[in-house]
Amino acid sequence: MPYFDAASSAPLHPVARQALQAALDEGWADPARLYREGRRARLLLDAAREAAAESVGCRPDELVFTPSGTRAIHSGISGVLAGRRRVGRHLVASAVEHSSVLHAGAALRGEGGTMTEVPVDRSGAVSAEAYASALREDTALACLQSANHEVGTEQPVTQVAEACRAAGVPLLVDAAQSLGWGPVDGAWSLLVASAHKWGGPAGVGLLAVRKGVRFAPQGPADERESGRAAGFENIPAIVAAAASLRAVRTEAADEAVRLRALVDRIRTRVPELVPDVEVVGDPERRLPHLVTFSCLYVDGETVLHELDRAGFSVSSGSSCTSSTLTPSHVLRAMGVLSEGNVRVSLPPGTAGEDVDRFLEVLPGVVAGVRERLGAPASVVSSPAADSLVVDAVGKRCPIPVIELAKVIGDVPVGGTVTVLSDDEAARLDIPAWCEMRGQEYVGEEPAERGVAYVVRRVS
Amino acid sequence: MPYFDAASSAPLHPVARQALQAALDEGWADPARLYREGRRARLLLDAAREAAAESVGCRPDELVFTPSGTRAIHSGISGVLAGRRRVGRHLVASAVEHSSVLHAGAALRGEGGTMTEVPVDRSGAVSAEAYASALREDTALACLQSANHEVGTEQPVTQVAEACRAAGVPLLVDAAQSLGWGPVDGAWSLLVASAHKWGGPAGVGLLAVRKGVRFAPQGPADERESGRAAGFENIPAIVAAAASLRAVRTEAADEAVRLRALVDRIRTRVPELVPDVEVVGDPERRLPHLVTFSCLYVDGETVLHELDRAGFSVSSGSSCTSSTLTPSHVLRAMGVLSEGNVRVSLPPGTAGEDVDRFLEVLPGVVAGVRERLGAPASVVSSPAADSLVVDAVGKRCPIPVIELAKVIGDVPVGGTVTVLSDDEAARLDIPAWCEMRGQEYVGEEPAERGVAYVVRRVS
Repeated sequence: MPYFDAASSAPLHPVARQALQAALDEGWADPARLYREGRRARLLLDAAREAAAESVGCRPDELVFTPSGTRAIHSGISGVLAGRRRVGRHLVASAVEHSSVLHAGAALRGEGGTMTEVPVDRSGAVSAEAYASALREDTALACLQSANHEVGTEQPVTQVAEACRAAGVPLLVDAAQSLGWGPVDGAWSLLVASAHKWGGPAGVGLLAVRKGVRFAPQGPADERESGRAAGFENIPAIVAAAASLRAVRTEAADEAVRLRALVDRIRTRVPELVPDVEVVGDPERRLPHLVTFSCLYVDGETVLHELDRAGFSVSSGSSCTSSTLTPSHVLRAMGVLSEGNVRVSLPPGTAGEDVDRFLEVLPGVVAGVRERLGAPASVVSSPAADSLVVDAVGKRCPIPVIELAKVIGDVPVGGTVTVLSDDEAARLDIPAWCEMRGQEYVGEEPAERGVAYVVRRVS
Repeated sequence: MPYFDAASSAPLHPVARQALQAALDEGWADPARLYREGRRARLLLDAAREAAAESVGCRPDELVFTPSGTRAIHSGISGVLAGRRRVGRHLVASAVEHSSVLHAGAALRGEGGTMTEVPVDRSGAVSAEAYASALREDTALACLQSANHEVGTEQPVTQVAEACRAAGVPLLVDAAQSLGWGPVDGAWSLLVASAHKWGGPAGVGLLAVRKGVRFAPQGPADERESGRAAGFENIPAIVAAAASLRAVRTEAADEAVRLRALVDRIRTRVPELVPDVEVVGDPERRLPHLVTFSCLYVDGETVLHELDRAGFSVSSGSSCTSSTLTPSHVLRAMGVLSEGNVRVSLPPGTAGEDVDRFLEVLPGVVAGVRERLGAPASVVSSPAADSLVVDAVGKRCPIPVIELAKVIGDVPVGGTVTVLSDDEAARLDIPAWCEMRGQEYVGEEPAERGVAYVVRRVS
């Protein structure tokens, strides 16, 4: 049963399992105690810190273990914001950061600070120039992911780090998706990662803070982990995290080549096998194991459900798969189609045959969903009126786009179709459909019910 | 090798180990995902929540899992303080709470709030009356441990909960030390515990918040755990925590009787075997597995070291064993001797023979340390002057008390000895020595160097 959602959480690496087992016997005591069980726990913790620091590329005393990547992000951001309070309360981050970064930014705004979200291009990447121009006199901290978790695009960390250094602003790099593949280049100031993304156990995040960065841990005082991560240390999991990071790193170069070939196969074959598909994310500067595409005229939840029935576990950034019924903020920031969105992220060891079987199954799954939703097989060309209004209020993604596609052939070239919709995804998906189908997106207007999205037929 | 420090961290229970192993295979995926691995993880998480809630005595939707007991304390306190902000910013807690509670109180003070520490008697217990009288119009939250972690004394939770209810103040109970022994009686509003204290794995705390308590989670928003505990859930550890809580509970009644008899043996025999010892904590209303005593004229660190060499792992609240060189705040609040402090906390399954061997070894260990420090074997009675001054400035616990004991016989009954000391522990230990030896503690005065502690010989 192929699991293709390593970017959410990877299955436990065999080395992590072995290390965890061993450390359960040796690492359960309080490492602050002076007796033998405590000393043994302390030795394990120290050794894990050294190993993890080596993998990260920092000094052991610059690295602490947190209970998760999210907590590492929260602590890292709040610690620098407090430590550099005198500089100002301005935060810079890309618009496609992990939600934990954006939520920390929202918390800052709630407390009177400000945040600039640096936009990304259609591939999901920031430009170093745009990033640099967002830095201000009062910028306390800049955040940038090493690679995007939804579309796999790598960010220009080295150049952004240079710009930050020139401006005297510390840069926090969220390396959650990439640390298993290699260390992060560039002069970063803080680095964050999460063990369960590389096959380590849940319950372990990393927070590295370079010497010299002004850092004031927030929350009640606690002696553990240099005062930067409160609570009793989870030593067995920490040991397993450090051991498995080292293990995946020794396999990373070969595995990256192998998985990159499998992902290339998906990138090439999906648009050939499935009509009306957009593969998103940078085709070159990207994580080796991750590919994302969106399919017109289908809803992500049904595609996920059908793929699950066929034995494939993938995820989606479509609005129908989120609790808030809004499309993923990453796809929105990129301005690409969000409907029928599928993210495939291959865990190490994925077999080529499983990818082939996925490519066999996918076309039928998408076609089946489209058929049930009454999606247009092709654009009908029988103009009836100069302009048409489609009322899709109350209908959810992908229905508004399907209704649009059904009638675009009913207006002459130069005519318009206006889609009335109150679905958040329509704002993203109607322009994306226009881009994919070579039609002109005129814009949106407020309407009595929902929003009016105007499309001009140009082909 | 007997480990007698279960109150710090208990060895992993066999049931916890089995459950953890099984859940590593089934519980590594993201429980928010819709595919089979995610659904499986969600089922495990839901089942663990139900089991833990049953053990706690609350509804499953009132309980969340946090990364540690400390984090549960921090989140519980900050959530109620924010939720009841309009009522006021006053916190009430006993003076002998776990440091995580007191540090949360210090953080509140740093933000302009206030905190009342309810004093305890010499046994370490608050009185419900004193506690009730600390509640004010602007009290947002009251905190009380179910039993003390250093001396084992049980607190009058039921009566305090009644007083809190009458005053309309929610009560947070820190049940970290007692939850393995049974549910907490009384109408508490929030309850906190930590799995590694009952033989569960590290990395899991519990936070129960009764319906109706105004609660506003602090920190950046996160969807996990009802928004009350950010970060990817550590499901294998959570499963192991819930399973082992259930397991230790089924053994708790029998094991409590057995360990209580072993602890009674220590409580009775230590003062018979070792001269100048004070057993602290309530002799009746106490945890079944924990006993603490203090030995005059020795330093805790050396005793711990010698006991460790003899194969016994215990802990201490003496100043010399803390990083800040101050005696434990619990012993200070109780006003009992802190020097030569030894806490014995027996894990379930402790053999009677190990306790017997501890009682064989202890007298020699204490005598050896006393001999090396030149402690007085008995009070010499050859009065020389009406008053004496002992200069112990620069000397650490237990030297000031040893110097005092050496010269008390050199003044006549009615005469005074003044000890000059700059050691924090002296403030606690000189009065405690007077109480133990039947001498009168006159008081302290500022001195040119350190503090002058005045003692009158009365016997």
